[in-house]
Amino acid sequence: MKKIAVFTSGGDAPGMNACIRAVVRTAVYHKLEVYGIGRGYNGMIQGEIYRLFSHSVSNIIQKGGTILKSARCLEFHTPEGRKRAYEQISKFGIEGIVAIGGNGTFTGAQIFHKEYGIPIMGCPGTIDNDLFGTDYTIGYDTAVNTALDAIDKIRDTADSHERVFFVEVMGRDSGYIALPCAIGGGAEMVMIPETITSMSEVIETLQQGWRRSKTSFIIIVAEGDDEGGATEIAAKVKQALPQMDAKVTIIGHVQRGGTPTAADRLLSSQMGMAAVEGLIAGRANEMVGVMNGEIVYTPFHDTITKKKPISESFLRLVEVLSV
Amino acid sequence: MKKIAVFTSGGDAPGMNACIRAVVRTAVYHKLEVYGIGRGYNGMIQGEIYRLFSHSVSNIIQKGGTILKSARCLEFHTPEGRKRAYEQISKFGIEGIVAIGGNGTFTGAQIFHKEYGIPIMGCPGTIDNDLFGTDYTIGYDTAVNTALDAIDKIRDTADSHERVFFVEVMGRDSGYIALPCAIGGGAEMVMIPETITSMSEVIETLQQGWRRSKTSFIIIVAEGDDEGGATEIAAKVKQALPQMDAKVTIIGHVQRGGTPTAADRLLSSQMGMAAVEGLIAGRANEMVGVMNGEIVYTPFHDTITKKKPISESFLRLVEVLSV
Amino acid sequence: MKKIAVFTSGGDAPGMNACIRAVVRTAVYHKLEVYGIGRGYNGMIQGEIYRLFSHSVSNIIQKGGTILKSARCLEFHTPEGRKRAYEQISKFGIEGIVAIGGNGTFTGAQIFHKEYGIPIMGCPGTIDNDLFGTDYTIGYDTAVNTALDAIDKIRDTADSHERVFFVEVMGRDSGYIALPCAIGGGAEMVMIPETITSMSEVIETLQQGWRRSKTSFIIIVAEGDDEGGATEIAAKVKQALPQMDAKVTIIGHVQRGGTPTAADRLLSSQMGMAAVEGLIAGRANEMVGVMNGEIVYTPFHDTITKKKPISESFLRLVEVLSV
Amino acid sequence: MKKIAVFTSGGDAPGMNACIRAVVRTAVYHKLEVYGIGRGYNGMIQGEIYRLFSHSVSNIIQKGGTILKSARCLEFHTPEGRKRAYEQISKFGIEGIVAIGGNGTFTGAQIFHKEYGIPIMGCPGTIDNDLFGTDYTIGYDTAVNTALDAIDKIRDTADSHERVFFVEVMGRDSGYIALPCAIGGGAEMVMIPETITSMSEVIETLQQGWRRSKTSFIIIVAEGDDEGGATEIAAKVKQALPQMDAKVTIIGHVQRGGTPTAADRLLSSQMGMAAVEGLIAGRANEMVGVMNGEIVYTPFHDTITKKKPISESFLRLVEVLSV
Repeated sequence: MKKIAVFTSGGDAPGMNACIRAVVRTAVYHKLEVYGIGRGYNGMIQGEIYRLFSHSVSNIIQKGGTILKSARCLEFHTPEGRKRAYEQISKFGIEGIVAIGGNGTFTGAQIFHKEYGIPIMGCPGTIDNDLFGTDYTIGYDTAVNTALDAIDKIRDTADSHERVFFVEVMGRDSGYIALPCAIGGGAEMVMIPETITSMSEVIETLQQGWRRSKTSFIIIVAEGDDEGGATEIAAKVKQALPQMDAKVTIIGHVQRGGTPTAADRLLSSQMGMAAVEGLIAGRANEMVGVMNGEIVYTPFHDTITKKKPISESFLRLVEVLSV
Repeated sequence: MKKIAVFTSGGDAPGMNACIRAVVRTAVYHKLEVYGIGRGYNGMIQGEIYRLFSHSVSNIIQKGGTILKSARCLEFHTPEGRKRAYEQISKFGIEGIVAIGGNGTFTGAQIFHKEYGIPIMGCPGTIDNDLFGTDYTIGYDTAVNTALDAIDKIRDTADSHERVFFVEVMGRDSGYIALPCAIGGGAEMVMIPETITSMSEVIETLQQGWRRSKTSFIIIVAEGDDEGGATEIAAKVKQALPQMDAKVTIIGHVQRGGTPTAADRLLSSQMGMAAVEGLIAGRANEMVGVMNGEIVYTPFHDTITKKKPISESFLRLVEVLSV
Repeated sequence: MKKIAVFTSGGDAPGMNACIRAVVRTAVYHKLEVYGIGRGYNGMIQGEIYRLFSHSVSNIIQKGGTILKSARCLEFHTPEGRKRAYEQISKFGIEGIVAIGGNGTFTGAQIFHKEYGIPIMGCPGTIDNDLFGTDYTIGYDTAVNTALDAIDKIRDTADSHERVFFVEVMGRDSGYIALPCAIGGGAEMVMIPETITSMSEVIETLQQGWRRSKTSFIIIVAEGDDEGGATEIAAKVKQALPQMDAKVTIIGHVQRGGTPTAADRLLSSQMGMAAVEGLIAGRANEMVGVMNGEIVYTPFHDTITKKKPISESFLRLVEVLSV
Repeated sequence: MKKIAVFTSGGDAPGMNACIRAVVRTAVYHKLEVYGIGRGYNGMIQGEIYRLFSHSVSNIIQKGGTILKSARCLEFHTPEGRKRAYEQISKFGIEGIVAIGGNGTFTGAQIFHKEYGIPIMGCPGTIDNDLFGTDYTIGYDTAVNTALDAIDKIRDTADSHERVFFVEVMGRDSGYIALPCAIGGGAEMVMIPETITSMSEVIETLQQGWRRSKTSFIIIVAEGDDEGGATEIAAKVKQALPQMDAKVTIIGHVQRGGTPTAADRLLSSQMGMAAVEGLIAGRANEMVGVMNGEIVYTPFHDTITKKKPISESFLRLVEVLSV
């Protein structure tokens, strides 16, 4: 293997740049030529491919976003799109690819590999942490800390005004962000897709607090909770308890940006290095993960189809610590 | 004067604790007894009044929120409520009051002073900075920095995905928060209540950017803009430009919390000291302000009725720097 | 078991308060009475022991330092001191203790347990992360992020001025803080106690960089490196390369303070809960740890005597990524 | 005027990039060509001069350091050096220059203007805030907030351990950074070059605190205090009070880096615009300043020779609020 490429795809995540840097530097270390592909599969189809050097990735480890940019690409879903992508890749003589993204990215990579045989290794770049095959995904630790920082600020106001705050964090399908935010934010309750939310229990708990004159509450809501996002849930609560001063804050896209934390820079660096060394070792069609502190490789198929469970012991922590 | 009291009222603002600390310490320095009143005018009515010492305010200068808590109080709008408040105040022998809050707080203080003659000095505690009689209000600098920090994070994502972001910051009646956020956040446009927003110009600017392949935009919207908040404005834009990937982020209550900045701690400390020394010097019925670096006093009446204009030169900065 | 106590000892670490909170709340959850002991073993000897309730630990999860305070205690090294401590503990009817601290704390606890039989469980509260029996210690993640934040700021200046910076981070006996700081800070070199530092190699690397006009360097030094701290190492370099503009920054005690990160709040909460539930289950004389995401218990004796090795793969990351 | 240039010189300061951006954008807005000069006067002499466009300064407003880099330049002190610089400037047809830096920078600019007549306008880029002719310098607000953030973290540890901390902040000739750090950090004392420090008073105050069992102190020391830096002062204190657990922290170069605050971005933007519009209006040989919220222009000669006094009322605040 002499030439490899790297791209980012799907929603951006803090640490993607640290991962790109690690891919480039590891390639240089092993005397490979390395190319960047701009805007995910779009750039692959349109030949937005350029050489990267060690200095190209200087001073990016601390930057949010992705210097290679990211975008959705409908054309890659078509055989024609993938054919054009392969032609571009071939033109540059690229023999292996590192794809940084989530399940959508890996699904495309799997098909592409099947059709054209080019080895692709994936790095899990998504703040959601709901990918099977790794304890943590790139950007997750940063996103949790960003959300927690916002929750700390909201608590100042909640305490000063004796209010109930419903704070919505990201997580369409999982409570991975919501759960540590609830524990770390000292929240009174957490609502996540993985468990059934009982509105009557929620209302009962608030009323109980009210009775023993506890009047400031923070409730963390994962955006994809079965009872809806924070706005819907707050509306249901207000209907039952109209006297309650309930406020809603949706932390939103802020969670995707910002300087990556130490843990995310470390994880991204490890994964980028492992992806390149995996390609060199002849691996393909797998996602790099870190489990129990060790690098592991999971076939794209498993990553895409298997579900990572939420920690039961964390759910118990929320319950015990909010007494 | 031997005994004074201090309370916070209205929306909380970072720096209120630094101001409380300065009031207490200045009182102690001048050998006055000082009392805290909890939950604004409510605590005054209900006698929630307790002695504060120098050490009572140790280690609070860096804390968001208000240790005295804050709340709305409908009862103080009634003559009966104010009578009860005066009785409580008298019971403790309090001869002067420092009120930290905004226009609502000062309106109550003015009436109370008129009816019962007790000297009250105000400190402008509100993140909105729209109070006449001071260049800056307590919490404003912190709120702007908090909003800017969120905007920086959003820019990471906007750049990576080539998206248009409408970011809503606080400001029901003014663009005081929005304007420095737009300049400091490198935003392409700003929409504030003080100027008429032309939706057709907004759309035209976005289309022009589009044509010269500028596809990432950040537009700051004050919540009280004449064309609506960020959600409404984004909806209007999407109707005209359906191809645009427009996202909305409402920064919300996060702006009210957090550790106060250096400037806010300094301002709050200056104002708290000036309020107490004003009372000692026989002043009453005035708001402390800082203008051009000097302490100034403005009658409550002027603060409440006069409008502080927005800086024309800042508006020009947004225009020039977004070329 | 009906009454337990908790104290902090040794150097403070961010997350100690989150751990105290978890101890108190878990005790309350299990219907135990819980007491706080002030200033470590000093407070135990002097009977500085007071009841804690669920609300006593409200709103402390995000606070640096320790509300129970910490101090060294020479008297506890003597049989008389420990006797007095046991008398105080007995007076309050305390039947189990959670000690939050490091090796010094656990050494005292082990002797105390041996002499008086009172069950003690330890939580590893130290930023250094060099305790055997846990993947992470309380405060470590925060300290690394604090140091990294400083290194990011220094890089701004290093890049602008083309300078060499020697940045000293904490770590008298280990490179646990230095290593992730070097990887995450994109440092060119790292010097830690666990490996032999060759000054001639350091100088050679700087000269090589100089030749290919790389003139801005960041070198992370653990305070206990075999060649000395940053000041000494910089002096040696300057002697060999007098033309070099070498600056030294010692991050220092800042690393011990600050709001704990999400990971530290989570870890502290888990450990505090596990310590109390361990006591209830009849455990004693052990340190709670988290290894591979699971709670584990290690006898004090092992924690104190065994050495936790540094990660070889992290050392390799620094080398590969600085090409 | 058709072509102008911009450079940064002297110690870097957060906000320099925001100022460069404003210079470039304002030039573009007024249809001027604009050039960047790398590494201060060095780049001028060596012809390190390149065209800048509006997009060249995209996404730099939030970045610490300076994209144009900075360096000392001994050669510019010689007539030959300045002659070479003028030849380079002339080659590019540059008719006006914006110099971002401090007194050293302006001294060079003044001589250069005198010798060659080229109009130069200065922007005060230094964290020290000790320049005559402006209320604030670029980077000052950020540096104070950075130092304050460190002081907040140190207070956590000081409180937990009952220690005395001597914290050294930048300020070789002035207490401009030290003073707001002392007020905002709730410090017990401040030592600055502008006032005479009495070691016997310092020791007396510490002893008094000790007697009323106040055992945690934070003392802010400007590096250029008449009694020495923090290390020297702590040594003198330890000699007199050997029982005291006195620690030293030198915040150091961290103060020069980091993302500029909102106030610094605003100030830098205003100044950059005013410098360019000053050049267009025929101004030369002056430093742009902001006083009482308004743009003012001060001849280089005054800036260099006059001394900006420290605020007496801030000194009083430290005294009153530490009771």
